[in-house]
Amino acid sequence: MNPIEHINVNKEMRVSDLVNQMKNSGVMGAGRIAKASDVLAEMIQDKDCRVFFGLAGAMVPGGMKNIILDMIKNDFIDVLVTTGANLTHDLIEALGHNHFQGSPDADDKELNKKQIDRIYDSFMPNKVYEDMEDFFKKNFEELSKTKSIKEFVWKIGELLNNPKSILTLCFQNKIPVFCPGIADSGIGLMVWGRQAEGKNFDLPVFEDMKEIISISWDSKKNGVIYIGGGLPKNFIQQSMQFSKGASYGVQISTNMPQFGGSSGAELKEGISWGKMNEKAKFVDVYCDATIALPLIYASVKDKV
Amino acid sequence: MNPIEHINVNKEMRVSDLVNQMKNSGVMGAGRIAKASDVLAEMIQDKDCRVFFGLAGAMVPGGMKNIILDMIKNDFIDVLVTTGANLTHDLIEALGHNHFQGSPDADDKELNKKQIDRIYDSFMPNKVYEDMEDFFKKNFEELSKTKSIKEFVWKIGELLNNPKSILTLCFQNKIPVFCPGIADSGIGLMVWGRQAEGKNFDLPVFEDMKEIISISWDSKKNGVIYIGGGLPKNFIQQSMQFSKGASYGVQISTNMPQFGGSSGAELKEGISWGKMNEKAKFVDVYCDATIALPLIYASVKDKV
Amino acid sequence: MNPIEHINVNKEMRVSDLVNQMKNSGVMGAGRIAKASDVLAEMIQDKDCRVFFGLAGAMVPGGMKNIILDMIKNDFIDVLVTTGANLTHDLIEALGHNHFQGSPDADDKELNKKQIDRIYDSFMPNKVYEDMEDFFKKNFEELSKTKSIKEFVWKIGELLNNPKSILTLCFQNKIPVFCPGIADSGIGLMVWGRQAEGKNFDLPVFEDMKEIISISWDSKKNGVIYIGGGLPKNFIQQSMQFSKGASYGVQISTNMPQFGGSSGAELKEGISWGKMNEKAKFVDVYCDATIALPLIYASVKDKV
Amino acid sequence: MNPIEHINVNKEMRVSDLVNQMKNSGVMGAGRIAKASDVLAEMIQDKDCRVFFGLAGAMVPGGMKNIILDMIKNDFIDVLVTTGANLTHDLIEALGHNHFQGSPDADDKELNKKQIDRIYDSFMPNKVYEDMEDFFKKNFEELSKTKSIKEFVWKIGELLNNPKSILTLCFQNKIPVFCPGIADSGIGLMVWGRQAEGKNFDLPVFEDMKEIISISWDSKKNGVIYIGGGLPKNFIQQSMQFSKGASYGVQISTNMPQFGGSSGAELKEGISWGKMNEKAKFVDVYCDATIALPLIYASVKDKV
Repeated sequence: MNPIEHINVNKEMRVSDLVNQMKNSGVMGAGRIAKASDVLAEMIQDKDCRVFFGLAGAMVPGGMKNIILDMIKNDFIDVLVTTGANLTHDLIEALGHNHFQGSPDADDKELNKKQIDRIYDSFMPNKVYEDMEDFFKKNFEELSKTKSIKEFVWKIGELLNNPKSILTLCFQNKIPVFCPGIADSGIGLMVWGRQAEGKNFDLPVFEDMKEIISISWDSKKNGVIYIGGGLPKNFIQQSMQFSKGASYGVQISTNMPQFGGSSGAELKEGISWGKMNEKAKFVDVYCDATIALPLIYASVKDKV
Repeated sequence: MNPIEHINVNKEMRVSDLVNQMKNSGVMGAGRIAKASDVLAEMIQDKDCRVFFGLAGAMVPGGMKNIILDMIKNDFIDVLVTTGANLTHDLIEALGHNHFQGSPDADDKELNKKQIDRIYDSFMPNKVYEDMEDFFKKNFEELSKTKSIKEFVWKIGELLNNPKSILTLCFQNKIPVFCPGIADSGIGLMVWGRQAEGKNFDLPVFEDMKEIISISWDSKKNGVIYIGGGLPKNFIQQSMQFSKGASYGVQISTNMPQFGGSSGAELKEGISWGKMNEKAKFVDVYCDATIALPLIYASVKDKV
Repeated sequence: MNPIEHINVNKEMRVSDLVNQMKNSGVMGAGRIAKASDVLAEMIQDKDCRVFFGLAGAMVPGGMKNIILDMIKNDFIDVLVTTGANLTHDLIEALGHNHFQGSPDADDKELNKKQIDRIYDSFMPNKVYEDMEDFFKKNFEELSKTKSIKEFVWKIGELLNNPKSILTLCFQNKIPVFCPGIADSGIGLMVWGRQAEGKNFDLPVFEDMKEIISISWDSKKNGVIYIGGGLPKNFIQQSMQFSKGASYGVQISTNMPQFGGSSGAELKEGISWGKMNEKAKFVDVYCDATIALPLIYASVKDKV
Repeated sequence: MNPIEHINVNKEMRVSDLVNQMKNSGVMGAGRIAKASDVLAEMIQDKDCRVFFGLAGAMVPGGMKNIILDMIKNDFIDVLVTTGANLTHDLIEALGHNHFQGSPDADDKELNKKQIDRIYDSFMPNKVYEDMEDFFKKNFEELSKTKSIKEFVWKIGELLNNPKSILTLCFQNKIPVFCPGIADSGIGLMVWGRQAEGKNFDLPVFEDMKEIISISWDSKKNGVIYIGGGLPKNFIQQSMQFSKGASYGVQISTNMPQFGGSSGAELKEGISWGKMNEKAKFVDVYCDATIALPLIYASVKDKV
């Protein structure tokens, strides 16, 4: 048994030093952060490993976009699965809008009058929808040529051509973006709006399964990163059944396993299904991802 | 201000008496249960109100299926939005299989050897996938004729023709079932399997938006019930923007708003977006749905 | 393996029927509620078993007082360990005051001006402190004769002589009440006030350990009920080390074990310490106690 | 409204840079961490402010001891209120023992046979109690001379004379340590053991209230830091009523306000009681303290 060494905090301390201290401490949340840093560093450095990143939660309004961009630029992600909401928020920012620092105690009736949409403590002016409408109206012919959700969202990224957009960078780096629940988002509403205007366009819902399962199947090893559960996690998990199970896993979530849902399920549960390899290195981090992800990622940057 | 009256528990007490006592108590979780009972009873009795039920979480493996069936039979639900997982588990049981009482402390490696899939503390034999395969192989020609996800899952229900199936009852009662994330499920895998065998079949991902938005738009009033957040909640919420906002709302979830995600967002947040009417009657219940839903529903049964 | 039977909810359903249904369902929160009902019923019916009840959380302002009173009257509790806060709120009500149904969204500055103290969504007029002052001034000579915290709080109960008071009923039924953290409460402030007026009175902090450990030691079997963790749980737990470990355990808490604190620790952790017998029957219920306790207790009433 | 700037993570990044980035991001957990850093830095640098530190949770087994030691050495804490458990674990380590990195999935029956006590995922050999017994037997005459809990625990610190002990440093720096619930701990058991051997010794439970209330009363300003709620938080909170309310507050907890208990109560609730000044600067951080505390404290070190 390793003794617990207490964390020493110093002036001008680097994040990676702090996370290393957490490794020596080794228990509770701190221990999980340190283990996540090790597993993530090993996962992204393993040349044989394809990294599947499942991004749920309000991570773009939550200020996490640049971390995703940095991971893409550094070739740390091979497959991105996310919600329509995160892609919509990425699109909104790429069109020149911002999310704003707000308050969860704001008066929602007042916000409604001011046409400000609240996402817990971040605010978004409702007028962003007008610019989205313009974008989709202007580009719908081009967008309509795509044949899968992946192609469609890549095309959005190509058209935006904005180096601060997740979609643009995924397109440019040929990182597949899977978003099976895309109808459930502002982007979905934009397509619905065009259909309502008479456009005859839709996309096949099952089509992208072929590609994500193929990537899982063909890889020597797979690694999974889950921020917040939901459909992104589960869609990656099901594709893992077509491999020997993921070899690496990092999950950051505030969902707890005790309530039985997929979002909070411990990664080890995946072993029973064959989604996680029984020899895999993995860790569940029970923490707000806007705290844990930057902390873990900053420490990983010093390791790779 | 109303004084808090302490809950009196009696022998042979009815659930509705207990929930009434919770109303007099009126605070914390108990108070929320009582309010949810009142709001739900009013919502389903309001002739002008269309009820949208968003069902996430592992509610079929969690033993909640018959409550949903009862609500359908009693015409309490007008629209069901759910995950592919819940539909898959419904299908599995309709094919004659069971989920089993297991343990979260089970050895997942052993379970994997025994081909038992673990969903927290419920177990499912992996062999159910074989019967699903048979069902889809046998019926795929019929299923392939459908043109939307809603038609597709209704057709599954029609073919199952099992009075204990959510899908069958929704089909028979013409209650639309929307499942935008259907690719993320065992049913999705079945379609993928047929595609891999050369079948040329897929479904349009945006198609069902037309119908759910139309129902929301055309209703005099709308009511929303959310079990567990996720895509079902959000998909209903976005359709509410095309009404005057929902007039009634009951949310049962263990997700907390403080972490910023849509699943845990308080219903009042929807007022800023116009998803919830500012005069709506609504309540957020912070509780495991397998406890709160039967309790609330049993008390509602005595009111209607 | 037992199949999961879905919960059937009926009109005029009894709570005990609902909880029985939860037993057949047997998973997630519902399963834990059902198991807690069984363990509690067996615990309080076992003639050889002494029942230790650890009550933390704002359970008196939360409307749970009458359940505790009923358990005392029915001789279901042998030892009560609680916080100074719960005893203070019991005293306040025994003096004729009420807690009130409030709102967590109230403006705390306004409440402060109105001299209303907020306990999440329950309100308490600050003027109750004046009546407490009067009570302690009037009775301090009598109270000062006590030699232990247990005697002191029993004496409060005797003086109150109010059949709706936990303290009075514990005094009358000779159920020891242990409150090692009594200084941390309104009652503590009352003693401090008398000391500030020159009264030379204090109580020994370790004295009551003798009795709680003796009861644990001398019992053939012990059972533990924990509402909400904190000092009450831990104080009982440590006395269990002087027995063969508790034979029965029911814990109802929203604290999660993953954060490492004693309040959220799973009962099984106690086996390592010898606080819980390795053959004990026990269950952890992850639920708001104002929901779970009435539900469990109402079902137990029909079993005993 | 301030736009949300996304967090940029760089190689060799300092913790203080990361936390500054979180400030620019400004929402959800990250925003709360940044605000806590600002409030804590201002609180400890305000010459007029007395800092009350409430430490609950398993923070010594959790590896947080050296942060507390560093805060004491730097004169950042004026009053420490903690649980008997944390003082016991501090004592155990001062006697030369360690806590060890364990696992929450360990077999508690096996651990019991090996005489290893589990605290979630940290392990403690049960034999530490023998050395505690020796320490208390050897020093009881000296310890018996103390007249208050504060003097008693200071005396333990003096006798230990170990520069790595919280108790020793508090004694040497004359920082009062209040532990009203001391009976609920291994230290309590040691006193009980001596009483069982016939020693006639006890300590007054209310005595220390005079001093903590005096400090609060006499200070120009007060600041409060709460790790994990429980009795330490509440004992400080009640003393704040005898000031103009705390001027600064930082709370780090995984308890949620929605369940109504004092541990999870938002700091703003204290405004209604007069425990928090209505102009106070304060923030609630919803996070595992073993993650949040080192992160916040490391960033504060670069500000002071």
